[in-house]
Amino acid sequence: MPSIVPITDPEDPRIEPYRDVRERDLVGRDGLFIAEGAVVVRSLVQSTRYRARSLLIADKRVEALEPMLAALPPETPVYTATQPVLDRIAGFPLHRGILAVGEKTGAPGAADLLAACGPVARVVMLFGIGNHDNMGGIFRNAAAFGTDAVILDSGCCDPLYRKAIRVSVGATLLVPTAKLGVGEDPLALLDRFGFETVALSPAGAETLAALAPPRRAALLFGSEGPGLPPALLARARSVRIPMAGGFDSLNVATTSGIVLHHIASGQAR
Amino acid sequence: MPSIVPITDPEDPRIEPYRDVRERDLVGRDGLFIAEGAVVVRSLVQSTRYRARSLLIADKRVEALEPMLAALPPETPVYTATQPVLDRIAGFPLHRGILAVGEKTGAPGAADLLAACGPVARVVMLFGIGNHDNMGGIFRNAAAFGTDAVILDSGCCDPLYRKAIRVSVGATLLVPTAKLGVGEDPLALLDRFGFETVALSPAGAETLAALAPPRRAALLFGSEGPGLPPALLARARSVRIPMAGGFDSLNVATTSGIVLHHIASGQAR
Repeated sequence: MPSIVPITDPEDPRIEPYRDVRERDLVGRDGLFIAEGAVVVRSLVQSTRYRARSLLIADKRVEALEPMLAALPPETPVYTATQPVLDRIAGFPLHRGILAVGEKTGAPGAADLLAACGPVARVVMLFGIGNHDNMGGIFRNAAAFGTDAVILDSGCCDPLYRKAIRVSVGATLLVPTAKLGVGEDPLALLDRFGFETVALSPAGAETLAALAPPRRAALLFGSEGPGLPPALLARARSVRIPMAGGFDSLNVATTSGIVLHHIASGQAR
Repeated sequence: MPSIVPITDPEDPRIEPYRDVRERDLVGRDGLFIAEGAVVVRSLVQSTRYRARSLLIADKRVEALEPMLAALPPETPVYTATQPVLDRIAGFPLHRGILAVGEKTGAPGAADLLAACGPVARVVMLFGIGNHDNMGGIFRNAAAFGTDAVILDSGCCDPLYRKAIRVSVGATLLVPTAKLGVGEDPLALLDRFGFETVALSPAGAETLAALAPPRRAALLFGSEGPGLPPALLARARSVRIPMAGGFDSLNVATTSGIVLHHIASGQAR
């Protein structure tokens, strides 16, 4: 069991990272991030690539959360507070009653994740996804369909941003993820590890429904407006989802769900 | 061309419905609603089931929007204002520069919409979808995959709520929609019009990927937590989307996209 540390003063310096969480974000500050709610904090505690640096819990919730707390290393502090103190620390009514500060335990490269994939695998590669809702939604779908890795280009937002974690229901902490190296050619990298590339585009040459899922599939998505970089699209196998006349607009997170369902249900693992 | 009416006083009573649009919602007040942004207002102007009662536009945008304005009936007032006046009316910086007040021109029943469907058709029926993001997302997918009707039970939120319209990118104004009648049995209704029912549930008996799309398909979705009413599910053909172990959670809007893609790409119209 970890140590339970009651906090009575909202100004206590030990809970500084939890202060006014709604107004700011820890991303970029020493690799720390905020996890919120029991489901997400449980994902953090279970994760092998992230660890909880501390938890902050409403004292009335401690008993119900004991099974999860028992899984924490003994040195991890669990701060508790009454609901009014908790609300003052967080800066808003924290109905969920549980927060954690997480940190990375390592930063695998994209090649490391691809090398770890089995003979039947699916990975998602994202280009310029800057919207936290979409990022969270894509990770949620990636987790639901057992995706081996999500690889991000430099134009993507951080999946550890608080809203992205929340929308993903904790999946950004569970699905292996890495950034493309600076100057790294994504298609050459995928080819090196034997992945067949499927680039999603409204102007794609084939339809998704007619696509026989590759055994090792890399699924490429761009942001809703600009789409995938034209130079990339020109060199990749491109696939479209046919849409009704006059309304050629699917949300990119929804698109990822449609594509992952098609690939996952057609791949024999 | 409609009449252009410059507004210089933010307190002008003619633009009362536009005042402080972020803080309140017109839904439920005389069947009026607010449409926002050029894409959504264009959907309103094109709609046969809704009409624009008036528009409010930043004066600098009038010229670019002329083709759309020309499609308005001459009696529809188009109010214009400078950006500062517009921002004061709306109560926040209205970067999109265009709002409209819409109203229904009629309220077809669910049976009317089902009767109008062709021999190959797909309709969506929703139970207890109370989240405006999900409602908007489902309509967006319904439009993208050419859905004939979206039918709502009494537990659903109003798709004309401002946020639902915005998330749907105007699709809530384009896809035919109706409410189930009070006490109406949805399965008997669908059966009466020759629709085969597919009820989505994590505990569904068949997998979606193995489902041969019915020629007239009715796709039933419940809200993410409680799902479809058990009494309904017990009487319907139930279908699941298989998910990776330990993460059985797809967003309901994403689910609708996956199901509609499978049905639409397998149906021969």
